Amino acid sequence: MSEKSNARDLIIGTAARLFFSQGYHATGLNQIIKESNTPKGSLYHYFPQGKEELALECIQTTNAYVLQKFQETFQSYETTSEGIRQFIYETANEAEASGYTGFYPFSFWAAVETSCISQQLRAASQDVFAGWQEVIACHLIQDGIGEERARETAMLVVSLMEGALIISLTNQDKQPLLTAADYLSVVAKNAEQKQ
Amino acid sequence: MSEKSNARDLIIGTAARLFFSQGYHATGLNQIIKESNTPKGSLYHYFPQGKEELALECIQTTNAYVLQKFQETFQSYETTSEGIRQFIYETANEAEASGYTGFYPFSFWAAVETSCISQQLRAASQDVFAGWQEVIACHLIQDGIGEERARETAMLVVSLMEGALIISLTNQDKQPLLTAADYLSVVAKNAEQKQ
Repeated sequence: MSEKSNARDLIIGTAARLFFSQGYHATGLNQIIKESNTPKGSLYHYFPQGKEELALECIQTTNAYVLQKFQETFQSYETTSEGIRQFIYETANEAEASGYTGFYPFSFWAAVETSCISQQLRAASQDVFAGWQEVIACHLIQDGIGEERARETAMLVVSLMEGALIISLTNQDKQPLLTAADYLSVVAKNAEQKQ
Repeated sequence: MSEKSNARDLIIGTAARLFFSQGYHATGLNQIIKESNTPKGSLYHYFPQGKEELALECIQTTNAYVLQKFQETFQSYETTSEGIRQFIYETANEAEASGYTGFYPFSFWAAVETSCISQQLRAASQDVFAGWQEVIACHLIQDGIGEERARETAMLVVSLMEGALIISLTNQDKQPLLTAADYLSVVAKNAEQKQ
Protein backbone atom coordinates (compact mmCIF):
# COMPACT_ATOMS: atom_id res chain seq x y z
CA MET A 1 0.00 0.00 0.00
CA SER A 2 1.47 3.36 -0.94
CA GLU A 3 1.94 6.04 1.66
CA LYS A 4 -0.75 8.15 0.05
CA SER A 5 -3.45 5.50 -0.04
CA ASN A 6 -2.44 4.58 3.49
CA ALA A 7 -3.18 8.15 4.64
CA ARG A 8 -6.60 7.95 3.00
CA ASP A 9 -7.38 4.66 4.78
CA LEU A 10 -6.14 6.04 8.09
CA ILE A 11 -8.41 9.06 7.72
CA ILE A 12 -11.45 6.90 6.93
CA GLY A 13 -10.76 4.46 9.77
CA THR A 14 -10.27 7.23 12.30
CA ALA A 15 -13.34 9.15 11.09
CA ALA A 16 -15.56 6.05 11.27
CA ARG A 17 -14.38 5.31 14.80
CA LEU A 18 -14.92 8.89 15.98
CA PHE A 19 -18.30 9.30 14.25
CA PHE A 20 -19.52 6.28 16.15
CA SER A 21 -17.93 6.81 19.52
CA GLN A 22 -18.73 10.50 19.91
CA GLY A 23 -21.25 11.19 17.14
CA TYR A 24 -21.15 12.83 13.73
CA HIS A 25 -21.82 16.33 14.99
CA ALA A 26 -19.28 16.22 17.79
CA THR A 27 -16.46 15.09 15.50
CA GLY A 28 -14.43 17.87 13.95
CA LEU A 29 -12.03 17.58 11.03
CA ASN A 30 -9.11 18.75 13.17
CA GLN A 31 -9.59 15.85 15.56
CA ILE A 32 -9.68 13.39 12.64
CA ILE A 33 -6.44 14.83 11.28
CA LYS A 34 -4.78 14.70 14.68
CA GLU A 35 -5.86 11.19 15.67
CA SER A 36 -5.16 9.68 12.26
CA ASN A 37 -1.59 11.05 12.36
CA THR A 38 -1.87 12.25 8.78
CA PRO A 39 -0.71 15.54 7.28
CA LYS A 40 -3.37 18.25 7.36
CA GLY A 41 -3.33 18.52 3.57
CA SER A 42 -4.27 14.86 3.10
CA LEU A 43 -7.83 15.16 4.39
CA TYR A 44 -8.56 18.18 2.21
CA HIS A 45 -6.84 16.47 -0.73
CA TYR A 46 -8.89 13.27 -0.52
CA PHE A 47 -12.11 14.87 0.71
CA PRO A 48 -12.26 18.37 -0.74
CA GLN A 49 -15.93 18.72 0.20
CA GLY A 50 -15.18 18.06 3.85
CA LYS A 51 -17.01 16.19 6.56
CA GLU A 52 -20.12 15.11 4.65
CA GLU A 53 -18.03 13.65 1.81
CA LEU A 54 -15.84 11.85 4.34
CA ALA A 55 -18.93 10.49 6.14
CA LEU A 56 -20.26 9.22 2.82
CA GLU A 57 -17.00 7.37 2.23
CA CYS A 58 -17.15 5.88 5.74
CA ILE A 59 -20.66 4.60 5.03
CA GLN A 60 -19.57 3.02 1.76
CA THR A 61 -16.41 1.45 3.21
CA THR A 62 -18.29 -0.01 6.17
CA ASN A 63 -21.00 -1.24 3.84
CA ALA A 64 -18.50 -3.01 1.57
CA TYR A 65 -17.08 -4.75 4.64
CA VAL A 66 -20.50 -5.83 5.90
CA LEU A 67 -21.62 -7.06 2.46
CA GLN A 68 -18.45 -9.12 2.09
CA LYS A 69 -18.97 -10.60 5.53
CA PHE A 70 -22.57 -11.47 4.66
CA GLN A 71 -21.43 -13.24 1.49
CA GLU A 72 -18.65 -15.15 3.24
CA THR A 73 -20.96 -16.24 6.04
CA PHE A 74 -23.69 -17.40 3.66
CA GLN A 75 -21.15 -19.37 1.62
CA SER A 76 -19.92 -21.15 4.74
CA TYR A 77 -23.33 -22.49 5.79
CA GLU A 78 -25.73 -24.77 4.00
CA THR A 79 -28.89 -22.79 4.72
CA THR A 80 -29.58 -19.08 4.86
CA SER A 81 -31.20 -19.49 8.27
CA GLU A 82 -27.96 -20.90 9.71
CA GLY A 83 -25.93 -18.18 7.97
CA ILE A 84 -28.09 -15.46 9.52
CA ARG A 85 -27.73 -16.98 12.97
CA GLN A 86 -23.94 -17.16 12.64
CA PHE A 87 -23.65 -13.62 11.26
CA ILE A 88 -25.49 -12.18 14.26
CA TYR A 89 -23.63 -14.41 16.73
CA GLU A 90 -20.35 -13.08 15.35
CA THR A 91 -21.63 -9.51 15.57
CA ALA A 92 -22.56 -10.13 19.22
CA ASN A 93 -19.13 -11.56 19.99
CA GLU A 94 -17.34 -8.67 18.25
CA ALA A 95 -19.45 -6.16 20.19
CA GLU A 96 -18.62 -7.91 23.46
CA ALA A 97 -14.91 -8.19 22.63
CA SER A 98 -14.77 -4.43 21.99
CA GLY A 99 -16.34 -3.69 25.36
CA TYR A 100 -19.39 -2.37 23.45
CA THR A 101 -17.65 0.87 22.61
CA GLY A 102 -15.04 0.16 19.94
CA PHE A 103 -17.64 -1.44 17.73
CA TYR A 104 -19.18 0.79 15.12
CA PRO A 105 -22.03 -0.46 13.00
CA PHE A 106 -22.63 2.23 10.48
CA SER A 107 -26.30 2.67 11.17
CA PHE A 108 -25.77 4.27 14.52
CA TRP A 109 -24.22 7.50 13.48
CA ALA A 110 -25.14 7.47 9.80
CA ALA A 111 -28.77 6.44 9.54
CA VAL A 112 -29.79 7.74 12.91
CA GLU A 113 -27.90 10.89 13.64
CA THR A 114 -27.52 12.27 10.14
CA SER A 115 -30.64 11.15 8.27
CA CYS A 116 -32.58 14.13 9.55
CA ILE A 117 -29.98 16.67 8.53
CA SER A 118 -28.46 15.44 5.27
CA GLN A 119 -30.44 14.14 2.32
CA GLN A 120 -27.22 12.74 0.82
CA LEU A 121 -26.30 10.72 3.91
CA ARG A 122 -29.88 9.58 4.40
CA ALA A 123 -30.02 8.30 0.81
CA ALA A 124 -26.69 6.50 1.27
CA SER A 125 -27.96 4.83 4.46
CA GLN A 126 -31.17 3.82 2.70
CA ASP A 127 -29.09 2.20 -0.08
CA VAL A 128 -27.07 0.30 2.52
CA PHE A 129 -30.16 -1.18 4.21
CA ALA A 130 -31.64 -2.01 0.80
CA GLY A 131 -28.39 -3.76 -0.16
CA TRP A 132 -28.40 -5.91 2.96
CA GLN A 133 -32.05 -6.84 2.42
CA GLU A 134 -31.25 -7.72 -1.19
CA VAL A 135 -28.41 -10.08 -0.25
CA ILE A 136 -30.51 -11.86 2.37
CA ALA A 137 -33.59 -12.02 0.12
CA CYS A 138 -31.52 -13.46 -2.77
CA HIS A 139 -30.17 -16.23 -0.58
CA LEU A 140 -33.66 -17.03 0.72
CA ILE A 141 -34.94 -17.16 -2.86
CA GLN A 142 -32.07 -19.51 -3.75
CA ASP A 143 -33.26 -21.70 -0.87
CA GLY A 144 -36.58 -21.95 -2.70
CA ILE A 145 -38.57 -19.32 -0.82
CA GLY A 146 -41.09 -17.25 -2.81
CA GLU A 147 -39.99 -13.71 -3.68
CA GLU A 148 -42.53 -11.77 -1.63
CA ARG A 149 -41.98 -13.83 1.49
CA ALA A 150 -38.21 -13.69 0.98
CA ARG A 151 -38.21 -9.86 0.82
CA GLU A 152 -40.49 -9.52 3.83
CA THR A 153 -38.33 -11.94 5.84
CA ALA A 154 -35.19 -10.06 4.79
CA MET A 155 -36.71 -6.79 6.01
CA LEU A 156 -37.49 -8.39 9.37
CA VAL A 157 -33.93 -9.73 9.61
CA VAL A 158 -32.34 -6.32 9.02
CA SER A 159 -34.81 -4.53 11.33
CA LEU A 160 -34.40 -6.98 14.20
CA MET A 161 -30.62 -7.08 13.78
CA GLU A 162 -30.39 -3.27 14.01
CA GLY A 163 -32.79 -3.06 16.95
CA ALA A 164 -31.11 -5.85 18.93
CA LEU A 165 -27.79 -4.10 18.34
CA ILE A 166 -29.15 -0.90 19.91
CA ILE A 167 -30.38 -2.75 22.98
CA SER A 168 -27.16 -4.79 23.28
CA LEU A 169 -24.95 -1.70 23.09
CA THR A 170 -27.17 0.22 25.50
CA ASN A 171 -27.27 -2.66 27.99
CA GLN A 172 -23.63 -3.64 27.32
CA ASP A 173 -24.90 -7.20 27.12
CA LYS A 174 -24.96 -9.46 24.08
CA GLN A 175 -28.12 -11.36 25.08
CA PRO A 176 -30.55 -9.26 22.97
CA LEU A 177 -28.42 -10.06 19.88
CA LEU A 178 -28.24 -13.77 20.73
CA THR A 179 -32.02 -13.91 21.27
CA ALA A 180 -32.53 -12.17 17.92
CA ALA A 181 -30.08 -14.55 16.19
CA ASP A 182 -31.83 -17.68 17.42
CA TYR A 183 -35.19 -16.25 16.63
CA LEU A 184 -34.32 -15.11 13.11
CA SER A 185 -32.85 -18.45 12.25
CA VAL A 186 -36.26 -19.98 13.12
CA VAL A 187 -38.05 -17.28 11.09
CA ALA A 188 -35.93 -18.03 8.02
CA LYS A 189 -36.34 -21.78 8.50
CA ASN A 190 -40.13 -21.42 8.80
CA ALA A 191 -40.25 -19.35 5.63
CA GLU A 192 -38.36 -22.17 3.92
CA GLN A 193 -40.64 -24.89 5.23
CA LYS A 194 -43.80 -23.11 4.17
CA GLN A 195 -42.86 -23.30 0.49
CA MET B 1 -50.32 25.28 34.95
CA SER B 2 -48.26 28.01 36.56
CA GLU B 3 -45.94 30.17 34.49
CA LYS B 4 -42.92 28.57 36.13
CA SER B 5 -43.85 24.95 35.47
CA ASN B 6 -44.81 25.99 31.95
CA ALA B 7 -41.26 27.27 31.36
CA ARG B 8 -39.87 23.97 32.57
CA ASP B 9 -42.14 22.01 30.21
CA LEU B 10 -41.27 24.31 27.31
CA ILE B 11 -37.57 23.74 27.95
CA ILE B 12 -37.98 19.94 28.07
CA GLY B 13 -40.17 19.82 24.94
CA THR B 14 -37.78 22.02 22.99
CA ALA B 15 -34.72 20.12 24.16
CA ALA B 16 -36.23 16.73 23.27
CA ARG B 17 -37.14 17.98 19.78
CA LEU B 18 -33.67 19.45 19.17
CA PHE B 19 -31.79 16.45 20.59
CA PHE B 20 -33.59 14.24 18.10
CA SER B 21 -33.63 16.44 15.05
CA GLN B 22 -30.01 17.58 15.21
CA GLY B 23 -28.43 15.28 17.78
CA TYR B 24 -27.38 15.59 21.41
CA HIS B 25 -23.90 16.92 20.68
CA ALA B 26 -25.01 19.53 18.19
CA THR B 27 -27.61 21.01 20.51
CA GLY B 28 -26.39 23.84 22.69
CA LEU B 29 -28.11 25.28 25.75
CA ASN B 30 -28.36 28.71 24.14
CA GLN B 31 -30.40 27.31 21.26
CA ILE B 32 -32.74 25.56 23.70
CA ILE B 33 -33.25 28.81 25.61
CA LYS B 34 -33.88 30.75 22.40
CA GLU B 35 -36.27 28.29 20.75
CA SER B 36 -38.24 27.59 23.92
CA ASN B 37 -38.83 31.34 24.41
CA THR B 38 -38.01 31.06 28.09
CA PRO B 39 -35.90 33.40 30.22
CA LYS B 40 -32.23 32.43 30.33
CA GLY B 41 -32.35 31.97 34.09
CA SER B 42 -35.07 29.30 33.84
CA LEU B 43 -32.92 26.62 32.27
CA TYR B 44 -30.17 27.08 34.85
CA HIS B 45 -32.77 27.24 37.62
CA TYR B 46 -34.48 23.97 36.68
CA PHE B 47 -31.37 22.16 35.42
CA PRO B 48 -28.42 23.49 37.42
CA GLN B 49 -26.20 20.66 36.18
CA GLY B 50 -26.80 21.61 32.55
CA LYS B 51 -27.23 19.56 29.42
CA GLU B 52 -26.79 16.05 30.81
CA GLU B 53 -29.36 16.69 33.55
CA LEU B 54 -31.76 18.13 30.98
CA ALA B 55 -31.22 15.11 28.70
CA LEU B 56 -31.97 12.78 31.59
CA GLU B 57 -35.24 14.61 32.20
CA CYS B 58 -36.11 14.35 28.49
CA ILE B 59 -35.53 10.59 28.63
CA GLN B 60 -37.75 10.23 31.68
CA THR B 61 -40.53 12.44 30.32
CA THR B 62 -40.58 10.61 26.98
CA ASN B 63 -40.50 7.29 28.79
CA ALA B 64 -43.49 8.21 30.97
CA TYR B 65 -45.41 9.13 27.81
CA VAL B 66 -44.51 5.85 26.06
CA LEU B 67 -45.33 3.72 29.12
CA GLN B 68 -48.71 5.40 29.46
CA LYS B 69 -49.40 4.81 25.79
CA PHE B 70 -48.44 1.13 26.12
CA GLN B 71 -50.84 0.73 29.06
CA GLU B 72 -53.71 2.52 27.31
CA THR B 73 -53.21 0.46 24.15
CA PHE B 74 -53.07 -2.83 26.01
CA GLN B 75 -56.23 -1.92 27.94
CA SER B 76 -58.08 -1.22 24.69
CA TYR B 77 -57.44 -4.62 23.11
CA GLU B 78 -58.40 -8.07 24.25
CA THR B 79 -55.03 -9.73 23.57
CA THR B 80 -51.49 -8.50 24.00
CA SER B 81 -50.68 -9.52 20.42
CA GLU B 82 -53.39 -7.18 19.09
CA GLY B 83 -52.22 -4.42 21.44
CA ILE B 84 -48.64 -4.70 20.17
CA ARG B 85 -49.79 -4.55 16.56
CA GLN B 86 -51.88 -1.43 17.23
CA PHE B 87 -49.11 0.28 19.19
CA ILE B 88 -46.66 -0.10 16.31
CA TYR B 89 -49.27 0.83 13.70
CA GLU B 90 -49.90 4.07 15.60
CA THR B 91 -46.15 4.71 15.85
CA ALA B 92 -45.88 4.22 12.08
CA ASN B 93 -48.75 6.63 11.42
CA GLU B 94 -47.32 9.25 13.77
CA ALA B 95 -43.92 8.97 12.10
CA GLU B 96 -45.52 9.41 8.67
CA ALA B 97 -47.70 12.32 9.80
CA SER B 98 -44.60 14.13 11.08
CA GLY B 99 -42.83 13.70 7.74
CA TYR B 100 -40.36 11.39 9.53
CA THR B 101 -38.53 14.31 11.06
CA GLY B 102 -40.72 15.78 13.80
CA PHE B 103 -41.00 12.41 15.45
CA TYR B 104 -38.56 11.70 18.21
CA PRO B 105 -38.44 8.31 19.83
CA PHE B 106 -36.06 8.66 22.72
CA SER B 107 -33.78 5.81 21.74
CA PHE B 108 -32.33 7.60 18.78
CA TRP B 109 -30.43 10.32 20.49
CA ALA B 110 -30.35 8.92 24.00
CA ALA B 111 -29.45 5.26 23.75
CA VAL B 112 -27.49 5.55 20.56
CA GLU B 113 -25.67 8.82 20.54
CA THR B 114 -25.00 9.22 24.23
CA SER B 115 -24.58 5.70 25.57
CA CYS B 116 -20.91 5.69 24.63
CA ILE B 117 -20.13 8.97 26.32
CA SER B 118 -22.27 9.13 29.45
CA GLN B 119 -22.70 6.30 31.93
CA GLN B 120 -25.64 8.16 33.48
CA LEU B 121 -27.54 8.49 30.20
CA ARG B 122 -26.68 4.93 29.18
CA ALA B 123 -28.07 3.60 32.48
CA ALA B 124 -31.23 5.69 32.04
CA SER B 125 -31.71 4.30 28.52
CA GLN B 126 -31.17 0.77 29.77
CA ASP B 127 -33.87 1.32 32.42
CA VAL B 128 -36.26 2.57 29.76
CA PHE B 129 -35.83 -0.51 27.55
CA ALA B 130 -36.13 -2.76 30.62
CA GLY B 131 -39.36 -0.98 31.59
CA TRP B 132 -40.90 -1.49 28.16
CA GLN B 133 -39.94 -5.16 28.20
CA GLU B 134 -41.45 -5.51 31.65
CA VAL B 135 -44.81 -4.03 30.62
CA ILE B 136 -45.03 -6.27 27.55
CA ALA B 137 -43.84 -9.37 29.43
CA CYS B 138 -46.39 -8.76 32.22
CA HIS B 139 -49.23 -8.55 29.73
CA LEU B 140 -48.07 -11.74 27.99
CA ILE B 141 -47.89 -13.49 31.37
CA GLN B 142 -51.43 -12.29 32.13
CA ASP B 143 -52.45 -13.90 28.84
CA GLY B 144 -51.18 -17.19 30.28
CA ILE B 145 -47.73 -17.32 28.67
CA GLY B 146 -44.88 -18.82 30.73
CA GLU B 147 -42.49 -16.32 32.28
CA GLU B 148 -39.35 -17.23 30.32
CA ARG B 149 -41.09 -17.22 26.97
CA ALA B 150 -42.89 -13.98 27.85
CA ARG B 151 -39.62 -12.20 28.67
CA GLU B 152 -37.89 -13.49 25.54
CA THR B 153 -40.86 -12.45 23.38
CA ALA B 154 -40.91 -9.01 25.02
CA MET B 155 -37.22 -8.56 24.22
CA LEU B 156 -37.88 -9.42 20.58
CA VAL B 157 -40.80 -6.98 20.46
CA VAL B 158 -38.71 -4.07 21.77
CA SER B 159 -35.71 -4.93 19.55
CA LEU B 160 -37.74 -5.29 16.37
CA MET B 161 -39.74 -2.16 17.14
CA GLU B 162 -36.57 -0.09 17.57
CA GLY B 163 -34.89 -1.56 14.48
CA ALA B 164 -37.94 -1.13 12.25
CA LEU B 165 -38.17 2.47 13.43
CA ILE B 166 -34.58 3.10 12.30
CA ILE B 167 -35.25 1.67 8.85
CA SER B 168 -38.57 3.51 8.53
CA LEU B 169 -37.07 6.87 9.45
CA THR B 170 -34.06 6.29 7.19
CA ASN B 171 -36.25 5.22 4.27
CA GLN B 172 -38.97 7.77 5.11
CA ASP B 173 -41.41 4.93 4.58
CA LYS B 174 -43.64 3.30 7.18
CA GLN B 175 -43.59 -0.17 5.57
CA PRO B 176 -40.78 -1.61 7.77
CA LEU B 177 -42.82 -0.67 10.87
CA LEU B 178 -46.02 -2.16 9.42
CA THR B 179 -44.21 -5.40 8.51
CA ALA B 180 -42.78 -5.56 12.04
CA ALA B 181 -46.22 -4.88 13.57
CA ASP B 182 -47.93 -7.67 11.67
CA TYR B 183 -45.09 -10.03 12.37
CA LEU B 184 -44.88 -9.31 16.09
CA SER B 185 -48.58 -9.78 16.52
CA VAL B 186 -48.12 -13.31 15.09
CA VAL B 187 -45.09 -13.90 17.36
CA ALA B 188 -47.09 -12.93 20.45
CA LYS B 189 -50.08 -15.00 19.32
CA ASN B 190 -47.86 -18.05 18.73
CA ALA B 191 -46.33 -17.68 22.17
CA GLU B 192 -49.86 -17.69 23.56
CA GLN B 193 -50.98 -20.74 21.61
CA LYS B 194 -47.96 -22.78 22.65
CA GLN B 195 -48.94 -22.67 26.32
